[in-house]
Amino acid sequence: MASLQTENTDINTARQKYIELLKQNGMTPKTETIPTAEASGRVTAAPIYARINAPHYSASAMDGIALDAKLTYGTTETTPLFLDIGDYKRVDTGDPLPDGCDTIIMAEDIIEMADGRIKLTNSAAPWQHIRQIGEDICAHEMILPSYTRITPYAIGAMIAGGVADIAVIKKPIVGFIPKGNELIPPTADPGKGDVLEFNSAIFSAMLREWGADAVTYPIVGDDAAGIRQVLETALSECDIVLMSAGISSNNEDYTAAAISTIGTVLYDGLAIKPGKPAILAYSDSKPILGIPRYPVSGIIVIEQILKPIIEFLSHSAPEAYRYADAVLSKSVVSAIGYREFIRVRMGYVKDKLIATPLGRGSGIVTSFMKADGIIEVPQDADGYENGDVVSVRLLTHVDELKHSLVAIGSHDPMLDELSDLLRKEHGSISLASAHVGSMGGLIAIRRGEAHLAGIHLLDEDTGEYNVSFIKKHIPKGGVRLIECVKRTQGLMLRKGNPMNIKGFPDLTRNKLRYVNRQKGSGTRILFDYLCGNTGIEPSLIYGFNREEYTHMSVAALIAADSADAGLGIYSAAKLYDLDFVPVCDEQYDLLIPDHAWDMPIMQNLLEILQSNAFRQRLGELGGYTVGKPGEVRFRT
Amino acid sequence: MASLQTENTDINTARQKYIELLKQNGMTPKTETIPTAEASGRVTAAPIYARINAPHYSASAMDGIALDAKLTYGTTETTPLFLDIGDYKRVDTGDPLPDGCDTIIMAEDIIEMADGRIKLTNSAAPWQHIRQIGEDICAHEMILPSYTRITPYAIGAMIAGGVADIAVIKKPIVGFIPKGNELIPPTADPGKGDVLEFNSAIFSAMLREWGADAVTYPIVGDDAAGIRQVLETALSECDIVLMSAGISSNNEDYTAAAISTIGTVLYDGLAIKPGKPAILAYSDSKPILGIPRYPVSGIIVIEQILKPIIEFLSHSAPEAYRYADAVLSKSVVSAIGYREFIRVRMGYVKDKLIATPLGRGSGIVTSFMKADGIIEVPQDADGYENGDVVSVRLLTHVDELKHSLVAIGSHDPMLDELSDLLRKEHGSISLASAHVGSMGGLIAIRRGEAHLAGIHLLDEDTGEYNVSFIKKHIPKGGVRLIECVKRTQGLMLRKGNPMNIKGFPDLTRNKLRYVNRQKGSGTRILFDYLCGNTGIEPSLIYGFNREEYTHMSVAALIAADSADAGLGIYSAAKLYDLDFVPVCDEQYDLLIPDHAWDMPIMQNLLEILQSNAFRQRLGELGGYTVGKPGEVRFRT
Repeated sequence: MASLQTENTDINTARQKYIELLKQNGMTPKTETIPTAEASGRVTAAPIYARINAPHYSASAMDGIALDAKLTYGTTETTPLFLDIGDYKRVDTGDPLPDGCDTIIMAEDIIEMADGRIKLTNSAAPWQHIRQIGEDICAHEMILPSYTRITPYAIGAMIAGGVADIAVIKKPIVGFIPKGNELIPPTADPGKGDVLEFNSAIFSAMLREWGADAVTYPIVGDDAAGIRQVLETALSECDIVLMSAGISSNNEDYTAAAISTIGTVLYDGLAIKPGKPAILAYSDSKPILGIPRYPVSGIIVIEQILKPIIEFLSHSAPEAYRYADAVLSKSVVSAIGYREFIRVRMGYVKDKLIATPLGRGSGIVTSFMKADGIIEVPQDADGYENGDVVSVRLLTHVDELKHSLVAIGSHDPMLDELSDLLRKEHGSISLASAHVGSMGGLIAIRRGEAHLAGIHLLDEDTGEYNVSFIKKHIPKGGVRLIECVKRTQGLMLRKGNPMNIKGFPDLTRNKLRYVNRQKGSGTRILFDYLCGNTGIEPSLIYGFNREEYTHMSVAALIAADSADAGLGIYSAAKLYDLDFVPVCDEQYDLLIPDHAWDMPIMQNLLEILQSNAFRQRLGELGGYTVGKPGEVRFRT
Repeated sequence: MASLQTENTDINTARQKYIELLKQNGMTPKTETIPTAEASGRVTAAPIYARINAPHYSASAMDGIALDAKLTYGTTETTPLFLDIGDYKRVDTGDPLPDGCDTIIMAEDIIEMADGRIKLTNSAAPWQHIRQIGEDICAHEMILPSYTRITPYAIGAMIAGGVADIAVIKKPIVGFIPKGNELIPPTADPGKGDVLEFNSAIFSAMLREWGADAVTYPIVGDDAAGIRQVLETALSECDIVLMSAGISSNNEDYTAAAISTIGTVLYDGLAIKPGKPAILAYSDSKPILGIPRYPVSGIIVIEQILKPIIEFLSHSAPEAYRYADAVLSKSVVSAIGYREFIRVRMGYVKDKLIATPLGRGSGIVTSFMKADGIIEVPQDADGYENGDVVSVRLLTHVDELKHSLVAIGSHDPMLDELSDLLRKEHGSISLASAHVGSMGGLIAIRRGEAHLAGIHLLDEDTGEYNVSFIKKHIPKGGVRLIECVKRTQGLMLRKGNPMNIKGFPDLTRNKLRYVNRQKGSGTRILFDYLCGNTGIEPSLIYGFNREEYTHMSVAALIAADSADAGLGIYSAAKLYDLDFVPVCDEQYDLLIPDHAWDMPIMQNLLEILQSNAFRQRLGELGGYTVGKPGEVRFRT
């Protein structure tokens, strides 16, 4: 049999050999019998034959009278026929054909006489207006062949054909064992070092979408005996067993060892990123998978290795992935030797599909939540350049992408409120914003990679915002600068200001922990300007190189007592209940290229900018002044 | 308020006015709070904000040591640093950053000394290799905006953000009241006049697919007081109430009357076919729908009227229907004044999408089961001609249609077995066969509307099968005739042969009920030939004009004692346990156009024709002789 592979193995080889081995060991779909009425979406395990005819009796297809057709032979307008009461029976649609009758005459074609008789002026053909036995389904007829997905209509046909129970492919049962001393059940109040166990919720939802039954076992600590016991239980109860594997090589990790006591490890480590610490093992015909604990790694391993197994066991056709070519808006560096799965946000800008890489850390679960697609960098490639056209596996339907506004630029929590109002007012429209700072936004607009950019760039010489930057960086023009809000920038400080910080000069004090914003962000440019203004040497500030990408991240670090001060907007300070020393009011505008101006969704956005609902949200956030939002401040 | 509309109303007007009125009356989506872990596929009712940061503590992103970065300043290869045990802490990936430390050095970058100290040859920057608080999600950040469908990944993000419960749009509860004295619960042994109540199973499955909760009430008879009572209960328990309406105008139908005692009927009758007897009513903001009892009518009314209401109440975007242009293979006559919904089977023949209308009766539930698409004939049109290009709403994905073999021609239950074997061997491939008789098949091949046709056409002059018909009807050639099976034709007779029928001459006997096959079928041609041969005047046979389309239908009528005799194949007689008087063995061939010959699925089919599995199935059916199946008997 196959021997343990400890090197990182190419995922396609690993997947193929693993599944092949499992099949050789007898892994095969199971069947079960269930009530037909509950079978929607399931797959037939064998051909389904009708047991009875549908309809099972000859029935009138019309309202009218039933009679023996022979009586009417020779009847015409000129030689009419008069039927006595005993000659016919009245029938409604659906009534059984009375004995002795072989034809139906429609109510519209009979003349009721005053004496109770019925007058006919035409002969009737036998079997006219009769629903024949078996018109819909004949007994013994094959209603559905094997391995067919059951629709609601097929359920009706099967029940009509007298089939009350059917054999279907059983849903594979997948058991997940969350393992790790650091894991705790979800709570809003975790202690330092506690890790919320939410992988089971993600995996269960994925598995159910794919047609499996998901079972989650209680969290088990890193203790060999306990792990072995729950593994044994899971193996006896499930068709497939998943267990958390490690996130590090140095960690005391019992997963592979524990699996080895009960099964065989085929691969320990895959040549993929994220997802490297995966373990592919088995016990007889049952797969046992070690799933890396970081959620993104886990999701990728489950999708790459487990999904095809579930498709096999549930007799579903492999999902037909859709791909599209997109222009990469940011370079991606990837390690040779690993197939890397890059999550990207996408949007159509000027008929060009743009893909923007999202956070790549294997702990960044939001990167999957926000992703519209996945780029796979092959094992022998070192990445892609900004501007490259790459093939993207789509997670979002192309039609939906056409209804997305791509916002790239400076961060403000107000943008999320704008996005919420857009969805509330205009349904499926979405505003996907990437926070790369004001300069990043300006460049994205110049390159034709965004529909709008939030920017707040202070020109030190003029004290004016944004216009001179546009003139300099977008000399060709073709853009409009739209007024959005004025907002208050200042120093965000720990609640109660325990360090007694009064302003910029205090930032170089010993023991004071500052947290900075990234280069190219409007707030960083403001910070540099303020340092210059107050004569501070920035490199003397502890934390000058500690860079965060949003006001919220800076505020979060201060609120968590990981830093003492940071420059940011009032609304972020307010959300985190921080102290705040105002520094200046600045102009936050939206930069919109002409090609995006006439898009209906852009017009929707501009309407919302001017709405009372938006003003109300700004009021709740705090620190904003609204002038004439939506007005064109500058056009070139 | 709106008054009762008794005329048949245009469906678009009716739908729009009905939904508008319901909204005016206060119909609106409801919300409920559920555990986040169970929210996959649901829609957010409000923006979801994170409650905590994820990660909620600064953590090591590597295995290595944590220390105060200041200690390392100035360290180089030439001026290395030696750390004592108290100067650093060992950390694994995911461990919290120890107090007093602000940097991590990777295990790979440290040198362990024999004396227990650690040697460094580089300085470390503060905050390197540290997963910052809020790296994935910041507290107070908007994780999802309103009205967003929740993915498994979003569940992970919300739980990571400390959100254990969320407000989602409540699934609307739809109650269905099956009504009618003739209805009985599904059974394989219904009496004459009993109608199996399977509509509830179809409707529930459809409703659940659309995201509603479905409740079925017990069957209620046509009794005003009983109906009113269950209507009241359903209205108090559900958001939407459905009740069976009539199938005929003459029927004693309490539906509209009963609804009127408890609500208001807005429309009684729609200008659609099937679906005319629909009732659109309401009680305050709750829709009450009278659903025609015939399943196809019911399905169409539910899809046309109820689906948009459910989409509104569950805040789902209306399903984006896909359409394709297809060539109609058969003319469709439609009544002016009604919008007609025609179910069609579809397939790609020679890159041309062909649509073949299916049984149009409103009781033919299999027409929906078999349908790949729906053609809507507008109210002011009288139908379409054979060969017309029509727009079809797709029920099957185009890719799947590309994997379907279109078989049009003579019926044989063996074709279903072939189809089952195809699916078993080759997965999602399907064989969609329309039973239009041998001549119909021949013509379909000539017109380029089918991939294969089963034919068994006897040339009276030569006694040979099929070849002369091909020469005559497909003079241009481009086809191959493939040997399939020899099968035994004969008279199928009631079990025990109570009428003592010995052969064709008996068929004209008084009181003997014959059932015939349709004109153009090979069996009908054989029947005409045998009548001529035995000198029988066919018009003297009672039932000569009673035409059925398959051997199974003929056999089913005889087995049900609705007829005494019919010409058909042995396998059908055997399935129904009928007596059988053999008449002749005939050649049943497959006619395949050259353009379909090289299709991989055609080659799969030919392989199966030659397989032992197929021979075994034929043996079980009985009455077949197999020579060299798959061999080309004739090519032109």
